[in-house]
Amino acid sequence: MIENYFNEKRNLINASLKKLLPDINQMPSLIHEAMHYSVFAGGKRLRPILVLAVGETLQIEEDFLLEPACALEFIHTYSLIHDDLPCIDNDDLRRGKPTSHKVFGEAIAVLAGDALLSHAFHILSNSKIAKEKPHIGMEIIFQISEAICTGGMLGGQVLDILYENKKITQDEAFQVDLLKTAKLIKTSVIIPAIIAGSKEKMQLLEQYGENIGIAFQIIDDLLDIKGEEKKLGKSIGKDLKAKKATLPSLLGYDKAFELARNYVQQAISIISKIDSKYLLTNIAQFILSRHS
Amino acid sequence: MIENYFNEKRNLINASLKKLLPDINQMPSLIHEAMHYSVFAGGKRLRPILVLAVGETLQIEEDFLLEPACALEFIHTYSLIHDDLPCIDNDDLRRGKPTSHKVFGEAIAVLAGDALLSHAFHILSNSKIAKEKPHIGMEIIFQISEAICTGGMLGGQVLDILYENKKITQDEAFQVDLLKTAKLIKTSVIIPAIIAGSKEKMQLLEQYGENIGIAFQIIDDLLDIKGEEKKLGKSIGKDLKAKKATLPSLLGYDKAFELARNYVQQAISIISKIDSKYLLTNIAQFILSRHS
Repeated sequence: MIENYFNEKRNLINASLKKLLPDINQMPSLIHEAMHYSVFAGGKRLRPILVLAVGETLQIEEDFLLEPACALEFIHTYSLIHDDLPCIDNDDLRRGKPTSHKVFGEAIAVLAGDALLSHAFHILSNSKIAKEKPHIGMEIIFQISEAICTGGMLGGQVLDILYENKKITQDEAFQVDLLKTAKLIKTSVIIPAIIAGSKEKMQLLEQYGENIGIAFQIIDDLLDIKGEEKKLGKSIGKDLKAKKATLPSLLGYDKAFELARNYVQQAISIISKIDSKYLLTNIAQFILSRHS
Repeated sequence: MIENYFNEKRNLINASLKKLLPDINQMPSLIHEAMHYSVFAGGKRLRPILVLAVGETLQIEEDFLLEPACALEFIHTYSLIHDDLPCIDNDDLRRGKPTSHKVFGEAIAVLAGDALLSHAFHILSNSKIAKEKPHIGMEIIFQISEAICTGGMLGGQVLDILYENKKITQDEAFQVDLLKTAKLIKTSVIIPAIIAGSKEKMQLLEQYGENIGIAFQIIDDLLDIKGEEKKLGKSIGKDLKAKKATLPSLLGYDKAFELARNYVQQAISIISKIDSKYLLTNIAQFILSRHS
């Protein structure tokens, strides 16, 4: 059932993303090709779907939500393109497809990331909410930019680099997940509350968002380990030698999954006050179920 | 006299830039060091000074201008850091100092650029003008993001890459200068007009900004050739073999300087209607005089 919801909303988001990107044939077309390539290289659209789902819960008009939702996906895609660069994670593949720099070269990959980030703010400042309620549109831009600066996503990426091949503590691994992933997911979740103008709901949603954000990252790292297990044909446990230390590589598979489950339960308990349709509960449970 | 004005405003801008950047000791400090390093690696501060000078001409409160002015400088700095990367222009030095990736490594240089771009929007959405007049603050964000997307600065950087080692026409070289440089300079110049809310002044300033922007880029390329001449100890004229074709390398030194002079005269003639203090006239002339 929640899968149907995801599929339906994913189609809506994909259509909006296409409409909101510069036309692929506009000059210089190479950069627009690169932007389209990475945006449509097959994402789950978790962040924009969260915006729509919370919006449905708070009964916010969808027209106010689609542009901020897509801006978040452009920002997420920019962060993946730059993360994959040879000088950072040096990944040739993402979701089984060649990464941007493998297809377009490093220079265009750097600029395509820059372009998606810039374009996100272009969309946000030209959105329906920005035009009709500029003070709310401005708060949305503030919260998104806050989540992606060095106190958020970029800070997490820097820590990721600094911690490479280092022994780190559980607290340090948690901090990476919080900054790199959970802050932007939290921001996705609070955008409808900013529009609704409810401080109480905002606080609940902030906590919900951070909890599912951490859980999402733990599950993501668990899936990576599973992938490694498959590839290596052996079980990888507590003593996993990962280039990057993550909560699963520090705690082992089972304890990390328990931790993710706790964060999801926490999120569900927090959100129960306003989650009349169980939509946000179902999404939280879906994040956990990706594990299996 | 105009030099004094530049020095005075540069000091003011430098103090504001420092205040508006994240503290260098904030964690993770490495990225903040990298941001400070490039912002304070010695810039002319042309874009922010233009904001203040037009603001003075239109009698706009300086408090409304400093944050957008600094945001433009952060954006300009981000574009230089990414331009200098090994995969793009591969420059080891800028203004005689080692470039960001030489000091901090490529990964941190990419992320420091990203951080300055993100931080610019954080500053813009948290500025005095955004808080007191959000519809105007929103228009400023829209115009800036428009100027740096693929129809502006990033489009120019892409063309620059595509045209490398290619024979290009004068029109194509002009297009690079317009997108890469003139659009953001134009935007700097119109910000005070957005605040003043005058469409007529806006149109004059748009034309003024584009003309001095093109002139500025031509002079910049002329200075590069002069630098090369000094280094190579020989005269470089019309047949200059440059890796990158620019208006000066296509036209030769003298014709290119004449062209820049025409753009400046055009700018001065356009702006004379509102330039009661001759401030914008003097700035346009100063741009030309950098040549000598």
